[in-house]
Amino acid sequence: MSDSSAANDVRMRGFARRTTVADALKWLDERTGRLGEETVPLRQAAGRVLAQEMRSRVDVPGFHRSMMDGYAVRAADTTGASSYNRLMLEVIGQSLPGNPFDVTVDRGQAVKIMTGAPVPEGADAVLPVEVVETEGERAFAVGDVSPGKHIGRVGEDITAGATVLEPGRVLRPQDIGLLSSIGTGRVPVVLRPRVRIVVTGNELLPAGSTPEPNRIVDSNGPMLDAFVRRDGGEPINPGIVQDTLEAILEAMRSPADAVLVSGGSSVGQEDFAPALLREHGELPIHGIAMRPSSPTGMGLLEGEDGCGRLVFLLPGNPVSCLCAYDFFAGRAIRVMGGRSTGWPYRRTTVPLSRKIVSTVGRLDYMRVKVVHGEAEPLAISGASVLSSTTRADGFVLVPPDSEGHPPGAEVEVYLYD
Amino acid sequence: MSDSSAANDVRMRGFARRTTVADALKWLDERTGRLGEETVPLRQAAGRVLAQEMRSRVDVPGFHRSMMDGYAVRAADTTGASSYNRLMLEVIGQSLPGNPFDVTVDRGQAVKIMTGAPVPEGADAVLPVEVVETEGERAFAVGDVSPGKHIGRVGEDITAGATVLEPGRVLRPQDIGLLSSIGTGRVPVVLRPRVRIVVTGNELLPAGSTPEPNRIVDSNGPMLDAFVRRDGGEPINPGIVQDTLEAILEAMRSPADAVLVSGGSSVGQEDFAPALLREHGELPIHGIAMRPSSPTGMGLLEGEDGCGRLVFLLPGNPVSCLCAYDFFAGRAIRVMGGRSTGWPYRRTTVPLSRKIVSTVGRLDYMRVKVVHGEAEPLAISGASVLSSTTRADGFVLVPPDSEGHPPGAEVEVYLYD
Repeated sequence: MSDSSAANDVRMRGFARRTTVADALKWLDERTGRLGEETVPLRQAAGRVLAQEMRSRVDVPGFHRSMMDGYAVRAADTTGASSYNRLMLEVIGQSLPGNPFDVTVDRGQAVKIMTGAPVPEGADAVLPVEVVETEGERAFAVGDVSPGKHIGRVGEDITAGATVLEPGRVLRPQDIGLLSSIGTGRVPVVLRPRVRIVVTGNELLPAGSTPEPNRIVDSNGPMLDAFVRRDGGEPINPGIVQDTLEAILEAMRSPADAVLVSGGSSVGQEDFAPALLREHGELPIHGIAMRPSSPTGMGLLEGEDGCGRLVFLLPGNPVSCLCAYDFFAGRAIRVMGGRSTGWPYRRTTVPLSRKIVSTVGRLDYMRVKVVHGEAEPLAISGASVLSSTTRADGFVLVPPDSEGHPPGAEVEVYLYD
Repeated sequence: MSDSSAANDVRMRGFARRTTVADALKWLDERTGRLGEETVPLRQAAGRVLAQEMRSRVDVPGFHRSMMDGYAVRAADTTGASSYNRLMLEVIGQSLPGNPFDVTVDRGQAVKIMTGAPVPEGADAVLPVEVVETEGERAFAVGDVSPGKHIGRVGEDITAGATVLEPGRVLRPQDIGLLSSIGTGRVPVVLRPRVRIVVTGNELLPAGSTPEPNRIVDSNGPMLDAFVRRDGGEPINPGIVQDTLEAILEAMRSPADAVLVSGGSSVGQEDFAPALLREHGELPIHGIAMRPSSPTGMGLLEGEDGCGRLVFLLPGNPVSCLCAYDFFAGRAIRVMGGRSTGWPYRRTTVPLSRKIVSTVGRLDYMRVKVVHGEAEPLAISGASVLSSTTRADGFVLVPPDSEGHPPGAEVEVYLYD
């Protein structure tokens, strides 16, 4: 295979047809499914996506627990007790957390008990310490309790056999606590998609370099790395890949669940990745009716492991790269990892401070600042100006059938934070 | 020091005075400040809090870059060019990304150029490939360009000396890209607070155990571990600490920026932590006018390193523990880590499906489900029922001066997801 033959196919050729964003998402969603699962230790499960229904095999609590410090009693023995009618109780022992008292409580008897300790047989309530007076070894009820009072019943929190969490849930801290309480040591979670980041471009210096004359430091690689982590994926980042057909093909075929190619995804002379995808896989989508990110491509390729994977050709311009990632690659990574397709951004509806002009037939992704409760479109439209996405608070989408919005129009802003 | 002497101080004693939530937060905020800083590699900086203003020492881009595939020309040479008026250009070389052409472009000359390549001296525009026709070695302009067209100017994205990011910012993926582009290899970020989790309770089995008769598995430890991570802290979790004064004091004094004590924070017989704090540090807040979590305490203790640290006494009941964490400890951890005091939850305003009753004088934290756009209070009020926080979609706060809300009242729900 010579470097020039495949490249010649696309040399100096414009995009034949731009796919609509809706069609591109449809194509993508039809080819994206949840990955398999793995088990991880409980402590590593927060933020992961639960892969299976979780049922409890046990009751929680598994024993009648005292909810107060006080005395385990037969409630009937306290009926009518008050400061003026002190009822004596025979204290026959004490029950401590993890250290129960194993004798049955009989009429007129009480067992001193702490919060969390097992309620002994025979007792049906806990008389709080506040309504007990002690004199030496003797105790007097100066208030009453009803049966069941201040006792956490067996299975009150969870009954054996109950489903406690449904698959697909992104595990919250309290879920981790709950799983621990039912005796879960390892948790079945959806695999994190392994996402290979292939950055090409002879003008690029690796992240961490000092910029040199005529060369720029890669910003897309580190940015994509952080985005992939945000979306629950595991970035595999071999650094900048040499701009040769062989190196790029090898990188695109290396083990991964999805591949992001950044740079060289336009239709220029050295755009090897699209040619390689056409030759070795398929590239049904190349060119999307949106701005920025119109040079985005999506295709399929068989990896060296024999498995097909999605390949995203992300434009080299950083803003286009960000937008294309967020529209397509991030969505696929979230879905592969068992998450929702939705944007991972908070939304707010505010009026526009200035008009937004858009072209019918393409979707526009406009960066805005939110100033004094108004969305202010950022003047800079260049797809190369990454600082526009760091100065922006978020973005507004203008759908393909719209010519834009007048000043004062209420728009939905997706907030980056 | 005998175990019983300190414990006797609090034995069977009720909370003398409940602090209001507002006063407790005021006390806390006055004692919580941002920690110091460290530098981390760029790839680890996403989601961390920037500790210093970041300025660029370089222009980005650092050279005039082509934004298109085409020909670098003197714009004046293309004036009037069209399909009917093809203007010949002498192609004197090509400029590739990272591989510039170092000769000055003169009148009537052109340099073939790729996107991202340096624009050679003399040229002031890039004529896109779409408006150039080639015949062998000759090129003809069939369209014109104005000066500066399709050129990314030096400093267009960032000018040398400019501030690109302000301290205090939680770094987003695009910030990482931007920092990379200005040559940042390591990033100054606020230290992650080291938070020691001290779980006490003789009835507790360590997380990962199978529940046994009369003993329950620790749920607060793993839950707090996940919460601390969520809030940007680094949990230090030595497992369950033995219920002795010595063991608890040692754990509370071990290296950490803050300490969470869970279990044994009520006023019961074995509540060593409050007694220890009073004896060795201070415990100005013990008992807060809220439900759940009223037994919460906050104090200060000097660690073995000689530095003072906040100690949070969190109730052992899991729901109380969660709520007390979220109100006080999480807030402090976020602030120590350079983050905001705000709740880390999305909010939505919806009507109540059923009334909420609350007691004047205390703040209520009511778990709710959001069903068909309405907030439905969960019937279970027990602070021990952790599953109520996993069944809930979020919570509603009822302020101390309110008796609750009638059905249909619009309430603000803090969403757990």
